[in-house]
Amino acid sequence: MEFFKGIGKISYEGKESKNELSFKYYNPEEIVMGKPMKEHLKFAMSYWHTLTAGGNDQFGEGTIVREWDCLTPMERAKARVKAGFEFMEKLGIEYFCFHDRDIAPEAETLAEYQKNLDEIVDVIEIEMKRTGIKLLWGTSNMFSHPRFVHGAATSCNADVFAWSAAQVKKALEITKRLNGAGYVFWGGREGYETLLNTDMKLEMDNLARLLKMSKEYAKEIGFDGQFYIEPKPKEPTKHQYDFDSATVIGFLKTYGLDKDFKLNIEANHATLAGHTFQHELRLARINGMLGSVDANMGDMLLGWDTDQFPTNIYDAVLAMYEILKDGGFKTGGLNFDSKVRRASIDTDDLFYAYIAGMDTFAKGLRVAAKLIEDKVFENVVAQRYASYTTGIGKEIVENKVGLKELSDYALKLHGIENRSGRQERLETILNNYIFA
Amino acid sequence: MEFFKGIGKISYEGKESKNELSFKYYNPEEIVMGKPMKEHLKFAMSYWHTLTAGGNDQFGEGTIVREWDCLTPMERAKARVKAGFEFMEKLGIEYFCFHDRDIAPEAETLAEYQKNLDEIVDVIEIEMKRTGIKLLWGTSNMFSHPRFVHGAATSCNADVFAWSAAQVKKALEITKRLNGAGYVFWGGREGYETLLNTDMKLEMDNLARLLKMSKEYAKEIGFDGQFYIEPKPKEPTKHQYDFDSATVIGFLKTYGLDKDFKLNIEANHATLAGHTFQHELRLARINGMLGSVDANMGDMLLGWDTDQFPTNIYDAVLAMYEILKDGGFKTGGLNFDSKVRRASIDTDDLFYAYIAGMDTFAKGLRVAAKLIEDKVFENVVAQRYASYTTGIGKEIVENKVGLKELSDYALKLHGIENRSGRQERLETILNNYIFA
Amino acid sequence: MEFFKGIGKISYEGKESKNELSFKYYNPEEIVMGKPMKEHLKFAMSYWHTLTAGGNDQFGEGTIVREWDCLTPMERAKARVKAGFEFMEKLGIEYFCFHDRDIAPEAETLAEYQKNLDEIVDVIEIEMKRTGIKLLWGTSNMFSHPRFVHGAATSCNADVFAWSAAQVKKALEITKRLNGAGYVFWGGREGYETLLNTDMKLEMDNLARLLKMSKEYAKEIGFDGQFYIEPKPKEPTKHQYDFDSATVIGFLKTYGLDKDFKLNIEANHATLAGHTFQHELRLARINGMLGSVDANMGDMLLGWDTDQFPTNIYDAVLAMYEILKDGGFKTGGLNFDSKVRRASIDTDDLFYAYIAGMDTFAKGLRVAAKLIEDKVFENVVAQRYASYTTGIGKEIVENKVGLKELSDYALKLHGIENRSGRQERLETILNNYIFA
Amino acid sequence: MEFFKGIGKISYEGKESKNELSFKYYNPEEIVMGKPMKEHLKFAMSYWHTLTAGGNDQFGEGTIVREWDCLTPMERAKARVKAGFEFMEKLGIEYFCFHDRDIAPEAETLAEYQKNLDEIVDVIEIEMKRTGIKLLWGTSNMFSHPRFVHGAATSCNADVFAWSAAQVKKALEITKRLNGAGYVFWGGREGYETLLNTDMKLEMDNLARLLKMSKEYAKEIGFDGQFYIEPKPKEPTKHQYDFDSATVIGFLKTYGLDKDFKLNIEANHATLAGHTFQHELRLARINGMLGSVDANMGDMLLGWDTDQFPTNIYDAVLAMYEILKDGGFKTGGLNFDSKVRRASIDTDDLFYAYIAGMDTFAKGLRVAAKLIEDKVFENVVAQRYASYTTGIGKEIVENKVGLKELSDYALKLHGIENRSGRQERLETILNNYIFA
Repeated sequence: MEFFKGIGKISYEGKESKNELSFKYYNPEEIVMGKPMKEHLKFAMSYWHTLTAGGNDQFGEGTIVREWDCLTPMERAKARVKAGFEFMEKLGIEYFCFHDRDIAPEAETLAEYQKNLDEIVDVIEIEMKRTGIKLLWGTSNMFSHPRFVHGAATSCNADVFAWSAAQVKKALEITKRLNGAGYVFWGGREGYETLLNTDMKLEMDNLARLLKMSKEYAKEIGFDGQFYIEPKPKEPTKHQYDFDSATVIGFLKTYGLDKDFKLNIEANHATLAGHTFQHELRLARINGMLGSVDANMGDMLLGWDTDQFPTNIYDAVLAMYEILKDGGFKTGGLNFDSKVRRASIDTDDLFYAYIAGMDTFAKGLRVAAKLIEDKVFENVVAQRYASYTTGIGKEIVENKVGLKELSDYALKLHGIENRSGRQERLETILNNYIFA
Repeated sequence: MEFFKGIGKISYEGKESKNELSFKYYNPEEIVMGKPMKEHLKFAMSYWHTLTAGGNDQFGEGTIVREWDCLTPMERAKARVKAGFEFMEKLGIEYFCFHDRDIAPEAETLAEYQKNLDEIVDVIEIEMKRTGIKLLWGTSNMFSHPRFVHGAATSCNADVFAWSAAQVKKALEITKRLNGAGYVFWGGREGYETLLNTDMKLEMDNLARLLKMSKEYAKEIGFDGQFYIEPKPKEPTKHQYDFDSATVIGFLKTYGLDKDFKLNIEANHATLAGHTFQHELRLARINGMLGSVDANMGDMLLGWDTDQFPTNIYDAVLAMYEILKDGGFKTGGLNFDSKVRRASIDTDDLFYAYIAGMDTFAKGLRVAAKLIEDKVFENVVAQRYASYTTGIGKEIVENKVGLKELSDYALKLHGIENRSGRQERLETILNNYIFA
Repeated sequence: MEFFKGIGKISYEGKESKNELSFKYYNPEEIVMGKPMKEHLKFAMSYWHTLTAGGNDQFGEGTIVREWDCLTPMERAKARVKAGFEFMEKLGIEYFCFHDRDIAPEAETLAEYQKNLDEIVDVIEIEMKRTGIKLLWGTSNMFSHPRFVHGAATSCNADVFAWSAAQVKKALEITKRLNGAGYVFWGGREGYETLLNTDMKLEMDNLARLLKMSKEYAKEIGFDGQFYIEPKPKEPTKHQYDFDSATVIGFLKTYGLDKDFKLNIEANHATLAGHTFQHELRLARINGMLGSVDANMGDMLLGWDTDQFPTNIYDAVLAMYEILKDGGFKTGGLNFDSKVRRASIDTDDLFYAYIAGMDTFAKGLRVAAKLIEDKVFENVVAQRYASYTTGIGKEIVENKVGLKELSDYALKLHGIENRSGRQERLETILNNYIFA
Repeated sequence: MEFFKGIGKISYEGKESKNELSFKYYNPEEIVMGKPMKEHLKFAMSYWHTLTAGGNDQFGEGTIVREWDCLTPMERAKARVKAGFEFMEKLGIEYFCFHDRDIAPEAETLAEYQKNLDEIVDVIEIEMKRTGIKLLWGTSNMFSHPRFVHGAATSCNADVFAWSAAQVKKALEITKRLNGAGYVFWGGREGYETLLNTDMKLEMDNLARLLKMSKEYAKEIGFDGQFYIEPKPKEPTKHQYDFDSATVIGFLKTYGLDKDFKLNIEANHATLAGHTFQHELRLARINGMLGSVDANMGDMLLGWDTDQFPTNIYDAVLAMYEILKDGGFKTGGLNFDSKVRRASIDTDDLFYAYIAGMDTFAKGLRVAAKLIEDKVFENVVAQRYASYTTGIGKEIVENKVGLKELSDYALKLHGIENRSGRQERLETILNNYIFA
């Protein structure tokens, strides 16, 4: 059965095409910096936003009706698998990501729920084999059900910790079974609502405990996918422990887990934390922890996670710049953690939205690659920091001098000359590469 | 010569007093939880805001004229010392904090500037002996002069790094000479304006280098005061590396410096980073890094550092709560990094402002102490997390179980029962303690 | 049938009481400034947050289970009426507010839905007669149903405008039938998601059209309650036309509706728009448009409407100050547009939460009244602006001079002397009144 | 004397040019939509940011040294005139804007200051004649001097009001003398710091009084340039009365001044108020009040006015779209109220920065014109709101129906069908026009 009738395979037709259901910039097999675009970008479909979201918000019910909504829970879950793979095939997307809860309906008991999961995973496995589509990462939803009202690993209730452990265990098994390249932890309820009732130390210790147990269990079952933590500062809770990249890196170091985890950076989470998307990627990169990316876009004037499809070219260029500088994705990819607007109620909108995101990132890749090939920023940086490659600067970076030597040096200086930072010029160059 | 004529010693007169130039809540020698209030609070005068600030802002010139403004630079510097000590004596403040640049005027050369510094330090030393007032911490201003346009330790210019090293060296020497209990690093320019021209890795490495050199030099000269880093997310730069407590803790761990530094937490910096003041204190506390406090208050609707005198009782209670729970200040104290409003142009306003801050924190201390004596939050927390003291919870915190054991446990659970978080009730209790 | 078993009438027991289910500050019949407290405060229960909310958020399902949840829709609706009146009686709350949709379940057709409404209104009417509790205001929910995806009066779909008109018509009739003292318009979807597809002019014209029609219909049916508009800047939509008080006042003037509407000011909406609660009240007051208040509190570090119960004493004092200066409420009151936190899952929490809000505002009233009786701010203001009561200042405010006369005057001035704004002193006085 | 040595006239060389000191997109005489680009864009140099700014910020001194800095005040003022006109000639900028205070130094007395002003205006007049460069608007700086600490027209001190009136009088005379096309009011201190000491009503009345007097005086001296108000929400004060476009429009209506003023919209002020630049332009446009534009860009993650040169293409396209839809500028233009970054310390940076802004807006104009020529958004809007051109929709907009008729209509509806808002598709189209 075809779910997206009337829409065929979306092809690259180039920027002159008038066909809105085509790619203008994303040409999967085109070679950029020695690799096909699709290998650079590794686009992934987010199961939740694409297949289960209905357009509800805090002040309103769902607006979006999908063909499978009328089915019984298990039939609906199966239809979603089929629809999802059809969707990915039509867009030429080769990866997907999911939460346990996205793919199978809840049940009365944990055992029953796990049975549901297994039944759906069977269907997914068949579709994966049929299509060659791969699992970028799996994860476990430990924030939607009321049992997680006080957190999952950070709940004040030990039973909830145990339940969470069980959920992660099963999700890891599924992810392994489906050959997932990674596994993500996003702790939407791992934080607090008020410090007045919170034992922050115990909660953070417990959060680390769950991560450690997960790593050990992964080893035990031979799952060698990459573990990621996805930072987000707040929402749903007032404060989340995985606030931003720097916080997570520090947390992992504190608990001796920094070798076992990388980061899954989301654009909208970056800005909610007060950072640019590029900042979060850069920080992860220079710490060797850039793992995967949740590609979306926030509204800079709104204080919540809007998860819009990414259409801002500046963000796409600078994100791809960081990813290329990191040597490209290893286990990770660009997962569209993006949802169509509540008013984008047609099925077609899903295609328009993914095309929007894919073309923006494809253009971003092209521009970033050209910037790197021309060494635009590399030359600027090399020149700007040249004083550290010789003389006193060299001695500083080689740790050969201390305050005394430097003070002696400074006392002999006849004035200091700084050079312009050239920000406006650099922004123009960036624009010119984008417009070209 | 008396600078603050017509204002005598500010005394505790209790809350019924109609004298605006008296303390209503701050009773220095009164015993609270076994210690005089003044030892709990350890108020410090900030040299810069109190003695050198003139009320200028980005859109306007200074509005505040002090008696010493008409003097020549060195005479002005000396007058400020005298005025500062008179001010502290009148308020009964026993500590102060300064930047090198606050106390002595710049000069043509570094050597000359250091001579200026020494001359003023002589005067400060005399006043300290005369009054018994102590130095809470010293620091070096490496952000105001144009040479720091690209940063100090993180400048792209190695000469600026050297200059910064020289400045820190001298500031450490002065701080040691004055028996300073600590030394603070606030890196107002240690960050970036645009990533397009920034080598973030080298800059962060260099920032760590300066810290390491400083620690080594301190050891060399026998300065055993506490080192602090003061987090701030942005302003003046677009992004500062010492973003918030979590970031700084992670940074210190990355560079192996976490044993050598504590945090100097500022209320207004906390909120600019998206955290409550209490959050930053709590996080520092549970990491054993709560060092000292810059007491002030921001305007939650403004996006810059307003450095207002702290008059919000909620913040004062919850800050004192964290400080008391940490066992009180060791080397640190409450430094009023607060400036009178640009329109508070009278000399009297300095007194009103300090009284405002001191009384608010004194009331805060009284309320926090009572909350702790009554174990209000302690009981709530103990009850809330009780499940971790027995059964499966105990096994979790004792690291005796893994995913498998927990999954087995969870599979047998017949539903999970959570208890109310009681936030509204706790907020009422807090109010009732404040109003009592 | 009793819904809140084990909880009796909440009484005033004074601040020494250890009974958490008592008022410490709210003493309904106590006379303050010549009027019983309850007449000053006119507390109202919000039907939605109190009786229909379940604790769901954007990332999670409802956590709160009420006794009536298991009933059929119409039985549940009736149970809520009973529970609501029992709740108000127990708390001594004399007013309530509701949306059409809160009280009766949706139906297949508009006609059927209106039948449901009538059936529930019958029950409400009986309860109102039985208890003497009154309707502060009614309103119509035109934002939750998917039909309002593009707005109600501002929808691009004329059928939706018509439907909205029908809904307002019925809601006005109900409000009149129940002797409502007012009727509120909150336009949660009256705004836009993107300007790329929006005819802003037509939408604003249509919004005004619905208001005008409503006013005319009210006249026709003899409803003489007060109309209010409730400003909110954003959420759910990206931009709402009723952004803040100033915007709404301007909008009403543009369409000649400013005589027919007042404002319903919500604390959390104020801060989302970048204003203090007091600012919005002040602006409404000096424009003669302070109508009613939605009493709640936001989290200043979160960018969405948290609708917390108001426990901040500063906001309560300053809000009551503005209300008292306005001569007190005429048709309006203090409606608790506040919801218990998602983790406050017990039925008791509803009582704790309302007590929190009522006691905070009662304390706020007491402090504000004392401040006014002592003319604290009045004297400050009179003195500060005294220059406008005489000489050139008097001529300015009497419009007797123009640029030329003022220039002549200024050319003769020998310097200008400004006096201190005294902000820190005023904040201390405010604190001292609160702590007293 | 040449100030910008080594830099010749900046010419249009097209996007393939490798010359960084050329325009890639701004081709002044090229015809777009029937008019030369330069007439569409009407670029203006801001005197202050370009000629008097030195790179100081709240935490640091000026970093930028200009050739004229060493001169005596009056000679410096004259040198700036020459430098400014040389700068405009080299860039082909045909307009400029200034504050009284930018062009001439302060003096002991008002009379003396006005003499200074006249002397400089003589020089400006000569340069204007020589070059044909025109004055877009003048204004008076009533926020920098300490006398304005409590406001100008809204000061609590009537002498300050008088002084402000004198300053406006003189500034109007100068603006008239120089044939200024407009006159701007930006009230940086027209607001409050704390409501505790503020008579908001009197202050707003007085603000309106100054505007009224100004209008009358303009009439008297025959100045028929356009008056503008420039909205800004805050900074330097906590709250400014001219918060945003909607607030200003409402304020003007309240005081009967809406026929006499238009708006000068600044991009960075828009975002500080929580709006997009396009939003503010659209609102002004549909109210017939779009007057002039301060072209710059803020940093969306910073809470203060960064006044960056505008290099964001999305903002430029959407701004030009609104301006074109308004029929283009009448009296107004695009004034670069933008300053080079504090680290852009070279003289060249001024050129790079202006080229950055001019090319971005030139590209923006080209894209906007194409979008309009192709009726991209016009068709979307026409189709989206088609229901208001016929049937019940037509009756609504023609005010022929009321609640009753609409209710009758709605009761007969068999379901409502909404169409997708298509946001993602529209964002893609916008991208495709930009990238093309």
